[in-house]
This record gives sequence, C-alpha cells and structure tokens, in this order.
Amino acid sequence: MADAYAHEIHPKHSYAPIRSGGLEVPETAIELDDSPTGPNEPFRIYRTRGPWAEPEVGLPGLRTEWIAARGDVEEYAGRERNLLDDGTRAAKRGAASEEWRGARRAPLRAREGKRVTQMHYARRGEITREMEFVALREHCDVEKVRSEVAAGRAIIPNNVNHPESEPMIIGNAFVTKINANIGNSAVTSSIREEVDKLRWATRWGADTVMDLSTGNDIHTTREWIIRNSPVPIGTVPIYQALEKVGGIAEELTWEIFRDTVIEQCEQGVDYMTIHAGVRLPFVPLTTRRVTGIVSRGGSIMAGWCLAHHKESFLYDNFDELCEIFAAYDVAFSLGDGLRPGSVADANDPAQFAELKTIGELCHRAWEHDVQVMIEGPGHVPLNMIQVNNDKEQQWCGGAPFYTLGPLVTDIAPGYDHITSAIGAANIAAGGTAMLCYVTPKEHLGLPNKDDVKTGVITYKIAAHAADVAKGHPGARAWDDAMSKARFEFRWEDQFALSLDPETARAYHDETLPAEPAKTAHFCSMCGPKFCSMRISQDIRDEFGDSIASLGMPSIEAALGEQHMAEVFREHGSQVYLPE
Amino acid sequence: MADAYAHEIHPKHSYAPIRSGGLEVPETAIELDDSPTGPNEPFRIYRTRGPWAEPEVGLPGLRTEWIAARGDVEEYAGRERNLLDDGTRAAKRGAASEEWRGARRAPLRAREGKRVTQMHYARRGEITREMEFVALREHCDVEKVRSEVAAGRAIIPNNVNHPESEPMIIGNAFVTKINANIGNSAVTSSIREEVDKLRWATRWGADTVMDLSTGNDIHTTREWIIRNSPVPIGTVPIYQALEKVGGIAEELTWEIFRDTVIEQCEQGVDYMTIHAGVRLPFVPLTTRRVTGIVSRGGSIMAGWCLAHHKESFLYDNFDELCEIFAAYDVAFSLGDGLRPGSVADANDPAQFAELKTIGELCHRAWEHDVQVMIEGPGHVPLNMIQVNNDKEQQWCGGAPFYTLGPLVTDIAPGYDHITSAIGAANIAAGGTAMLCYVTPKEHLGLPNKDDVKTGVITYKIAAHAADVAKGHPGARAWDDAMSKARFEFRWEDQFALSLDPETARAYHDETLPAEPAKTAHFCSMCGPKFCSMRISQDIRDEFGDSIASLGMPSIEAALGEQHMAEVFREHGSQVYLPE
Repeated sequence: MADAYAHEIHPKHSYAPIRSGGLEVPETAIELDDSPTGPNEPFRIYRTRGPWAEPEVGLPGLRTEWIAARGDVEEYAGRERNLLDDGTRAAKRGAASEEWRGARRAPLRAREGKRVTQMHYARRGEITREMEFVALREHCDVEKVRSEVAAGRAIIPNNVNHPESEPMIIGNAFVTKINANIGNSAVTSSIREEVDKLRWATRWGADTVMDLSTGNDIHTTREWIIRNSPVPIGTVPIYQALEKVGGIAEELTWEIFRDTVIEQCEQGVDYMTIHAGVRLPFVPLTTRRVTGIVSRGGSIMAGWCLAHHKESFLYDNFDELCEIFAAYDVAFSLGDGLRPGSVADANDPAQFAELKTIGELCHRAWEHDVQVMIEGPGHVPLNMIQVNNDKEQQWCGGAPFYTLGPLVTDIAPGYDHITSAIGAANIAAGGTAMLCYVTPKEHLGLPNKDDVKTGVITYKIAAHAADVAKGHPGARAWDDAMSKARFEFRWEDQFALSLDPETARAYHDETLPAEPAKTAHFCSMCGPKFCSMRISQDIRDEFGDSIASLGMPSIEAALGEQHMAEVFREHGSQVYLPE
Repeated sequence: MADAYAHEIHPKHSYAPIRSGGLEVPETAIELDDSPTGPNEPFRIYRTRGPWAEPEVGLPGLRTEWIAARGDVEEYAGRERNLLDDGTRAAKRGAASEEWRGARRAPLRAREGKRVTQMHYARRGEITREMEFVALREHCDVEKVRSEVAAGRAIIPNNVNHPESEPMIIGNAFVTKINANIGNSAVTSSIREEVDKLRWATRWGADTVMDLSTGNDIHTTREWIIRNSPVPIGTVPIYQALEKVGGIAEELTWEIFRDTVIEQCEQGVDYMTIHAGVRLPFVPLTTRRVTGIVSRGGSIMAGWCLAHHKESFLYDNFDELCEIFAAYDVAFSLGDGLRPGSVADANDPAQFAELKTIGELCHRAWEHDVQVMIEGPGHVPLNMIQVNNDKEQQWCGGAPFYTLGPLVTDIAPGYDHITSAIGAANIAAGGTAMLCYVTPKEHLGLPNKDDVKTGVITYKIAAHAADVAKGHPGARAWDDAMSKARFEFRWEDQFALSLDPETARAYHDETLPAEPAKTAHFCSMCGPKFCSMRISQDIRDEFGDSIASLGMPSIEAALGEQHMAEVFREHGSQVYLPE
C-alpha cells in the first residue's frame, strides 16, 4: 500500500525506507537517469509519508508495542461516549453523521506517579524508539535528538493514544517542518472530505496537521482523522469547548474545558493550542489596534475574561493542564491569542506582553516534563520579523517556535500563501522550527483540496529555502540534484525532483507536449535553434579540461590584481582559477 | 477610454489623475464605504496605467511636445525598412505576418553635439516635464527626482522615439518597480497575443515591460508593442541580432549588432540589456559551475568570445554604444550574462568578476550622461542575498539595481514565481530598485496570459512588502486601509483594495456566494455564530473609551515592572497604556 501511494507522486518515486535496528523509517527514493559522465545514485528525500490505509479501517499501531514496552501506561475506561461531543445535531439524531466503525483501543494514560513524555525520558537519559526513529529520519545522531528534547529545544509530539503516528521532531536544529490546517466549519464540509484533506496534505508533505473543526461532528471527525493520520495531529480544544456551550464565550468554564481536553487526550491528539497567555490585564492593550484580536481562541478568552472580569481559567489552571498533558504526552502549543492581524499591529505591546507570559508558562510546563512549542505571528513587515525569533528564544528558553506565516503585507487577499511564504522563509531562516501554512483562501474562506495542496507546496518551499539558508546538512543537495538535471536536460528527472512533479510536467507540456521534447536539449523558452544551457555545455565540453592551456588573457591581467583580490576575497582558494 | 479600462479592475476603482501644472498624472482612486465612525476618503494608489488605445491605432504622443520644446532633437530619415529585421520568413513573404498600419513618426535623434538624456538635463540642473511628472506620481519633491537622476541613483527610461510613454522612475529612493517579460519564441505566439500580454501586464501593474521576442516578426511585434505601451519598453538587442545571423553566435559582428541597436533606438526602445561585462577571460570561470551560463545573452557572448578568441565586441565598442544611447536617451540595463542559474553557483567569482566590470562600464556610461541600471541574479540562497546589493552599490556607484528574483531554491519548478518572490522581497528591502518578475512557467515554458497576471501580482506583493519594510513614505497606508476594512467587515472594500479584486471576490464567493454575505459581520472561516473580529469589535465598543476606568488589574502589577519595561522598551511612549 505504501508503494502504491508513493507512486502516485511520480513514477520515478519509490518508497525506500531506512531499515535499522528493527525500525522502518519511510523515505522516498527518486530514480535518476544517467548523466553524460555516468550513472546517478537515486536521490533520497525526507517526506512525510505513512502507510496508506482504507479510511474506514485506519492505520496499524506502529508505536503500540514501544509504548507498552515502557511499562508506564495503563488502559482505563475513559470518558463515556457523549453525543454532545459531536454537537447538538448529533445528539438529536442519536449519532454523528458518520460514526467511526474501525477499531477502538481502550485509552492509555500514565500509571499513577508516572510521566510518559519524551521529554521525561530524554531528561532521564533514556533513548526511546521514537528518538531512534527520528534520528534515522533526520540523519543525525540519536544523542542529538535526546539532548535537544531534554533541553526543551525540540519536541516529538506523540500522544500515547496515537500509536499510528510516525515520530517526527520539531526544533531549530532539525529540518524545518510545516503544518497544514484542515477542519470543517459551521458552513461547510463532511467527515470524508476532512479525511481526504488529511491524506492530501500529507501526500504533498505536511509534517503535522491541525484539525480546526468548529462545525458538526467535531469528535467523530477527529476520530477519523487521528485513526488515519501518520503525522501528529494538533487541535485547539477551546473551539470544541465553545461549541459545547452553544458558542457563547462567557458560558465556558474550566470544567467544560478540562473535560474537552481529556476527551481529546484519550482520542490521541498530539499537541494542543492553549491560549493561556491571554490574561485579563492584556485585553485593553488591544483596543487601539487596527485589527484588535484576530485569533479565534484569543478572542474567546478575552471575551470570557472581560465578561467575568476574572483572570483566564487557562492561566489559573495551567499546572493542572500540565499534569494532564504529562499523563498522555500531549505537547503544548502555547497559542498567540494576541498575535497581530495586520502589519500595523505587529510587535506591539499586546503581542509581546503575551509572549513573555507564554515564556513563563513554558518554563512551568517543563517542570512537569511536558513538551512545549510556542506559537508566533501572524502579520509582520519584513524588517520586523527577526525580533520575534529573538524574543521568543530569550523569553521561552529556546523552545521551538511555530509561526503562522507571517504575512509581510495585508494588500493581497487571494495570494496570502505568497505574502506569508515570504515572511515564513525569513522567520524560519532566523530560527523558527515549524511553519503553519497559509492557503490562498486566507481571510476569504475555507481551503478546498487545491488550496491545501498550494498551501503545502508553498510552505515546503519556504521551509526548504530556510534550511538552505541555515546551511542545514544535506539541504542544498536537493537543489544541486535539480540543477544538475536541468543543466543536462534530464527533463524527467527535473519533474521527478520537483516538489510538485505533476504541475512541473503539465507546464512543460503546455508548450512542448511531444514525448521527444522530454529528452530534447532545448525548451520552449528559446526554442531548438539556440539554447544558452547548450552553449554552456559546449563550452565545457570543448574547453573544460584544458582551459589552463588555452593561453587566455589572464583574469588578473584583464581586471588588475587588486580588483580580483576584492572579487575573490570571500571565495578563498577553494574556487578554481584559470592561469 | 481610460475610465473604461480603470473600471475593468473593479467597479470601485476610478481613473483619478493628479492634475498640476498642465500635467495629467494617472492615479487610481478606490471608493470606500463608510466606517461606523464616519466616511472614508477614497484611497489613492499609484498604478501603472495608460490610456487604453485601439491596438491598430496606438497611443497619442504624450511627450511629443515636451521633447520638441527642448529644441535639441531633429527628425531624420532613419534606417530603411528591411524585411530581414523581421526574419527570413517575412523576407520571403514580402511582409511581416501583420504589418503595423498605425501612424509612423519620423525618428528623432539628438542634434549634432547634443545629449538628450534625462541625466544630462538633471546634471545641468534642469527640471524636465518628465521629472515633474515623476515627482507627482511619487508624491515627492521634484528636486529629489532631479538630484537622484543626476547622481545616477535613479533613471527615467524615456526614449525620445517613445513619446507615448508615461514617465516613471527607477531608483531605491522611490516606489519599488516591477518588470514583466513578454515576447514570442520560435515555437509560439502571434503579434496580437503579444500586444494583449502587454496590456494585460500593465493592467495588473507592470511598471516596465521587456519584449524578449526571439521568433518571427521581431521588428514588427516590437513596433506594435511600443506604439501601444504607456510604460517603458526594454529589449535585449543581441536576441534580434542573433536572428539576423541565423542563430549562429560566432557569425555576429559589431556592425550587425550596432545596426540592430540603432533600429531599436529609432523605434523607441527605452532601455536595452547589454551584456558587455561578459569578457573573454571570465568565460573559463564558468566551466566548473553546476549550471554554467544560463543567461541567453551571456552565453551568446561567451560563445562568440571563445569562437573568435577575442575580447567581446560589446566591451570593446562600449563608448560608441554610449554615444548612440545618448542621442536617443536609451538607458543601459547592464546585463548579468554570468548570473548564477542555481543556488550552487550564487555569488561565485564569475558573477562578481562580471559585476565589477559592469560597475566600470556604468561609470563610463555616466561620462556620456547615459542613464544606467544594473542587472542582478538569478538564483541566490536567502542568506547570500544582501551581499549582492552591497557589492552592486559599492562597485556601480549607487546605480539602480534590477534583479531577476532571485530564486532562493531550485526545487520547485512550477512555483518559481514564489521561490523568486521570497528572494525579490528581500533584495528589494535591501536596496534593489526594480524587480524582474518570474512566472510559474519559469524553467518550463513561455508564460501565457494567466501566468503573466500571476507573475505581476506576485511581484507587486514582493515590491510592496519591500516598500513597507523600507518604510517608504505612504507604503503602509495601503495595508492599513485594507486592515481597517477587514476589521469593519467592509467586504467590498477589501476586494477593491486588494491587488487582485477579481480573485479575492471569487474566493470569498466560493463558500459564501450570497450578496448579503458581502455585508455580513462574519465569514466562512468561523461561520455566523462566532467571529473573533466581531468579539474584538465588541470589546472595543464596550470598553474602548473607558478602559482606564474599569479598575482592571494593572498590567504592571500582573507582570512586574521590569517585565513591562522590557516589553515596552522599543515602543516608547507613543503606545497607549492602560492605568
């Protein structure tokens, strides 16, 4: 099944797992044609890719035995099925619109007095199977994985109740990750569509997926998603809690929220956005903003705080939340409820007051060995981006930063995947560990399948551009493989190596559809008569190896010694110089 | 006619020229609905927008009288019509495939001993009508325009034989500009299609257009384009020269090239890419590159240099080129023939050896009072971009930099408008004056009309993001107008204010097509029951004016004085603080 899925991307792609120590870590091998100088090794890429199950059945529990083997969890009865978890419509009907019929495991939680988080193990010096898996995926030493998790600089979001997930790591020292948001709303979508979006998003490379459903059948939609997801699933539990009180923020209580969190812990949500940094005294800081509070969770909490004139129940009960999370290994994604919704509001006191509070909460979560990442903006002009990384690092003790974009301008609705990819590439190059995608529908509507794909590909670009800029080991090899294929007119390899082979091929074929054009030493830009790439090849073929003996006027003579010294200053002696 | 054109973008857009001193400078006014607090002034934007002529007729000569009034040009017979200018097919047929039938003006050139460039006037302290026009467009003092042009830090590309053009300025001190490439190739396109692409590109905001035709009817295609273009037209004359010698680079001669340049000067080309920095001794520097020479002009010249084992005829005859350009006010766009075609080749000795040479040529052109801009890469990782601006400024005396992207990764063919917009926004924020767009078809084929639009909008985003980052006067006002409309649920205003109103509306209507949704205080993301923007508004409505009297726990008390001092350090006292 895995193979069939892999092949869907391109005929030259194959599922080529790394097998080591009993682990099978998915990787994709891209078969390459020969170069004129000889054969090319298949190019291997990290790609989020699980086995591909029947949606009704769900995935096997890859991690089930690992979790059991640690002997620190126990099965228990769990909450009772409550149809109100799926909203009033399901309660009236007596069922969700499509109940989950696949296997149901009894929920697990930590035994009394145990903490079952990857951070806990890492701090005790233990190497888990999850860490080994991650190290193979990232092609790094497992000790690096352990020590980064122990220090809080990276997280492995893996709820013990989501054994289907393939471990992955989020941290600045690793490949930059991307998240795709899916989920229904009151006006759209079915359960099947959401499962389809999940598969579609992971097919194109989403490293995690957030289910932000706010419509009908929230519980059951999530069940379908988690049981089918090889990637960590995140949620914003306050969304479901709000539905439980009929959408009226002031009727929320800590008890309802807590119960919702446990419901989601038992299902297997791997990380949850918690807007505990939206404190009562910060609310007034937003009233002079151009766009006020744009985070849904942030405005719910602000509304609650003001209505009750009380401190946030999330802030007040944060330690209890930590205890719950520690029992399932759910990671915090500390939400930026006061993030700027316009470039005008970027980096303002409301945003930074919240960030500093989040930093304090982060340290408190770490006291419980709970994994944490920190959410960031939003809308930020290009020149104001880096300070976000800097303050996050300073205040949040190096916890992984997870940002939405940021959008660098507000004037392009319909193109906010692009306005935000500009910001995303920059913030990731500056230290952000995971990027939450933005689709072309941002500010306008809910993404459909095409939008999900566009968002994912756009964010793969931003993330990879950042990895190249950071000099992440191995990142540029992909660019180089592509460029070599390009120079050698290996068109099929260019398609196969691209983030979206289908689109690359379709665009090429629009002007040159005939099969011979795939091996032609030209393209439609210049046509067959003249091609700059071909001239370069001719130059190299003719003069490449004997350039020094050509008796060319020397470059130093042409430009003067001082000139060349300037040109070459930063290139040193690694670069070839003609006589 | 202008109005009809303006209205095509959106019903709320109107042609609202600035009228001053006998000049009519196009600007677009966007009508806005009332805010709850009162009416909004129409929002005015700079937009490339000429009158909209019948293609067969062409535009009136806006600048004809200004040019004549200076008394320094003369009409002359010009070259004779040579059908080979349109290629062998036209010569056989006895005509181009669609001859230009509109008005033909006798070509103008400088009288003996005169220089007719804007730089020449500027250096003499003269304010031209073109400079006045530009100052009104840019909302700046005309002395700023004059002094920047005089210093070579900005150019106003305006061939005396292209009187149809509306003056615009390219320089780091002004609004960041974008260029759109059009043009046929041996395998595609008709003359009508190219005129259509020109109009389409300028409709969406291209500030200049380059005609890169390499197929049939090059001369006549260009005639149609120039006669219909309100924006400056650039070309790469070596492309046409190569066609004249049957596509065989080594058969090029200085005489053929010179004649082609004069042909294009007489037609009215405003700036020409000249790859005079590709010198014989630099060619060997490219042989160890991953992608060799990717510039078409660069490889033509490299091929010629090697075949003849001679210095480039462009370099050797550069002063004569300067004299020709000075007689028509054609600006140099000194081409980066050795730009990197992959991130692997970025900032290498070949690239910088050429850039330094270009800098020398730039200073030589200035001795002739010829306007110059400098072309830049290409493919450059995010962390290696700024050094390009720095070296360009240093070596080219502050001449405007004009870059293609750069693409920050090579792995996303089909999405290179995005990979390059990331680089473009960064390089423009760092000082680049004009960005050459890249379309989704880059590396794969020639752009069609949709691609042209996508490329233009994407580059408007990059340019504007840079202007916001640079703090260019007035830039952020556009974002703020959009965000205010967003916060107030003025959907029609959001569409009208966006770079692409059609797409924004279409995306919105995909989920909420009904007309009332355009005034609804919610959108499809959250649905009608709950909306974070609405909660923010409620907070503001309820507490906005009396927040200080609420008796809220003070933010300092909540966080501690030192904490808040940190948060507010960079915000100073302009920001509202609650008691």
